[in-house]
Amino acid sequence: MKSYDQNLASMVQELKKEAKVLGSLTGEEKNRGLQRVIEALESEEETILQANKEDLEKARRAGVRESLVDRLALDSDRLTAMKEALREVIALKDPVWSSGKTWTLENGLTLSKMTVPLGVVGIIYESRPNVTVDAFALGFKSGNGVLLRGSSSALNSNRALVGAIHRGLKAAGISPKVLGFIDDDRRELVLEMLHMKGKIDLIIPRGGKGLIDFVVENAKVPTVETGVGNCHLYVDAEGDLSMAMEILKNGKMQRPGVCNALETLLVHEAVAEAFIKKLSQELEGVTLHGCELTEKYISVEKATEADWKEEFLDLILAVRVVKDLPEAIEHIDQYGTGHSEAIVTNNYQHAQAFQRKVDAAAVYVNASTRFTDGGAFGFGGEMGISTQKVHARGPMGLEELVTTKYIARGEGQIR
Amino acid sequence: MKSYDQNLASMVQELKKEAKVLGSLTGEEKNRGLQRVIEALESEEETILQANKEDLEKARRAGVRESLVDRLALDSDRLTAMKEALREVIALKDPVWSSGKTWTLENGLTLSKMTVPLGVVGIIYESRPNVTVDAFALGFKSGNGVLLRGSSSALNSNRALVGAIHRGLKAAGISPKVLGFIDDDRRELVLEMLHMKGKIDLIIPRGGKGLIDFVVENAKVPTVETGVGNCHLYVDAEGDLSMAMEILKNGKMQRPGVCNALETLLVHEAVAEAFIKKLSQELEGVTLHGCELTEKYISVEKATEADWKEEFLDLILAVRVVKDLPEAIEHIDQYGTGHSEAIVTNNYQHAQAFQRKVDAAAVYVNASTRFTDGGAFGFGGEMGISTQKVHARGPMGLEELVTTKYIARGEGQIR
Repeated sequence: MKSYDQNLASMVQELKKEAKVLGSLTGEEKNRGLQRVIEALESEEETILQANKEDLEKARRAGVRESLVDRLALDSDRLTAMKEALREVIALKDPVWSSGKTWTLENGLTLSKMTVPLGVVGIIYESRPNVTVDAFALGFKSGNGVLLRGSSSALNSNRALVGAIHRGLKAAGISPKVLGFIDDDRRELVLEMLHMKGKIDLIIPRGGKGLIDFVVENAKVPTVETGVGNCHLYVDAEGDLSMAMEILKNGKMQRPGVCNALETLLVHEAVAEAFIKKLSQELEGVTLHGCELTEKYISVEKATEADWKEEFLDLILAVRVVKDLPEAIEHIDQYGTGHSEAIVTNNYQHAQAFQRKVDAAAVYVNASTRFTDGGAFGFGGEMGISTQKVHARGPMGLEELVTTKYIARGEGQIR
Repeated sequence: MKSYDQNLASMVQELKKEAKVLGSLTGEEKNRGLQRVIEALESEEETILQANKEDLEKARRAGVRESLVDRLALDSDRLTAMKEALREVIALKDPVWSSGKTWTLENGLTLSKMTVPLGVVGIIYESRPNVTVDAFALGFKSGNGVLLRGSSSALNSNRALVGAIHRGLKAAGISPKVLGFIDDDRRELVLEMLHMKGKIDLIIPRGGKGLIDFVVENAKVPTVETGVGNCHLYVDAEGDLSMAMEILKNGKMQRPGVCNALETLLVHEAVAEAFIKKLSQELEGVTLHGCELTEKYISVEKATEADWKEEFLDLILAVRVVKDLPEAIEHIDQYGTGHSEAIVTNNYQHAQAFQRKVDAAAVYVNASTRFTDGGAFGFGGEMGISTQKVHARGPMGLEELVTTKYIARGEGQIR
């Protein structure tokens, strides 16, 4: 028997108990809770922004670069967006106790596969405080107790947000203990959390590769890997080149720091010259790392093996000319992380083959990879984007936060 | 980089490659393969039975008890049952490339959540050679490469069965490499297998608690825990006592060694005397371990805390008198393993509450827990019965052996 940190152990125990109560609430009751949380975020806006200011000052004093400070920052608009996300979750159908399948055996026994909450879901995340509210909302609506472990850089902001959520729940007559928050930035508590098998049902890490790898390596609790996205755009010989350029610009430049941004461009050799020659002008500010064939058309840094593997998360694009669709698919197979992949083509067979053969959470024909996102998909936010195949794949919304239970109703059937 | 056993590493590499080809076969092509496998099992029956005889002799020489030798034994009838199971799998709908959900975003982008094979599925199992055929059939039909690691006690039988499957596949023009078989009983190969993250997509252990715990403790590859079943029957005050007795006898005596057999009987105090007094006569041959209140009505061994936790897998039953439904649910909560639980009642509210509140893969009202089984549920066999909540819960059939992929079809949509 491991000796867990006493506070964490008792918090999780209470969380598990209260999660059972939460799991039996009706959709209406849960929505009333979420509504009260919106009101609490509203009335505590000043406190929250003040707490966030402390985090920002601390980050700036520590010399954190401004793009990261920005990820941490809250303002009235961002709080409004959080409340909007809560309203979207309220509007979603209750995911609990519905049946995808009901059937009757030859002996008359009726079986239903019903959705039920997982129990306790743990989220380990970095920086952005809006994850605090998103993760709570989706976990709560799906009837799960949620245990949050944010980053120490956002500790004040998260503490204020969780405080508001707790008061909102209380106002709705729901135990605030359904949302646990590790208000302690000792790293060993993450490890304790990862070892709480049987106490926590699922842990979702949201953050950089270092965090994800640490979690996957050390977890005894089931986990879902999220987020690492080495995403490709393949421009087919029969692709519309101006459409391809718009999709490329959107994928690379609109928000380069996110996991569904493009990292590598693959171009069919037949359209390579026409397409690649335009890159320097169209992708202003983007550094290109190109293969040898790319260098025939424009002057670029020479791409190395490391470039094909890299998730730049920055204004850098790797470019490779391929001889056909199979070579493009092979490249994606070898270097992709199974996140989001796109083709631009007007050829029906190429579109079909790309969709069937590329092994990723989301595969796009003639559209931007930037859509791989719980909000964009209409899930009212997301718990992360799974890049594994087991349990969930792609943006995790309410459906990915429930499990199932077979219910059998009989009249004395035996075998 | 770990250095895997060379043979295993290259087998898994080939398996992954061939699994991709398998994943794109049509349902018809896969069914033709399964049909050829049936024919091969037919024509190689003598070789298989001879190989099995060697295993049986080895087991008897080693002094293995007869009930375990029986689990290992094959005969013409059991081979017929295997072929029957293959025919059932042929009759099932192809689980690959169907969509549970297709919708269109406001910008016109159409999304479909499509089913796709997991890739490579590993099964680590003990004793029964029919698992070899079942696991292959379900894995194959769902488009997955399957890697089998059976027990050393069944090595000859498994080798002969896999040989027949390989020849059947070859006759159908399908690469036999889609079924990998670890023909080597060194224990360290199991550990190697558990560490092949990115090469094997899912590992399912089927066997005793020791095996399951070893797998869960050591795996880096995602796993599904299966099989440990401490199952309860609760006889409510408003239950039909003769129905309850039939369900109890079926659950305890029909096949005590399986995971869906009953281990503990909980009886409401109002019917305890009437029900418990009949136990000795009705459950002939079953040893009873009872609580203090049970001892008021019949003479039994005193039940200890260990009895409530025990999966006897034998003709032993723990008996406890409870004061009401909540106490029964609390007992199940504390000692159950989340496998199969049953209530016998004619009270509507009690039936509802039991189904909602008991946290298990399968919850029965007025029926035997013995039905929790892929075959009985109509899944054409099973890959194991998941007792975890993540990915799959309950009997794992074709639906649990696929993952999903979002397909987006657009006309140039960007964010």
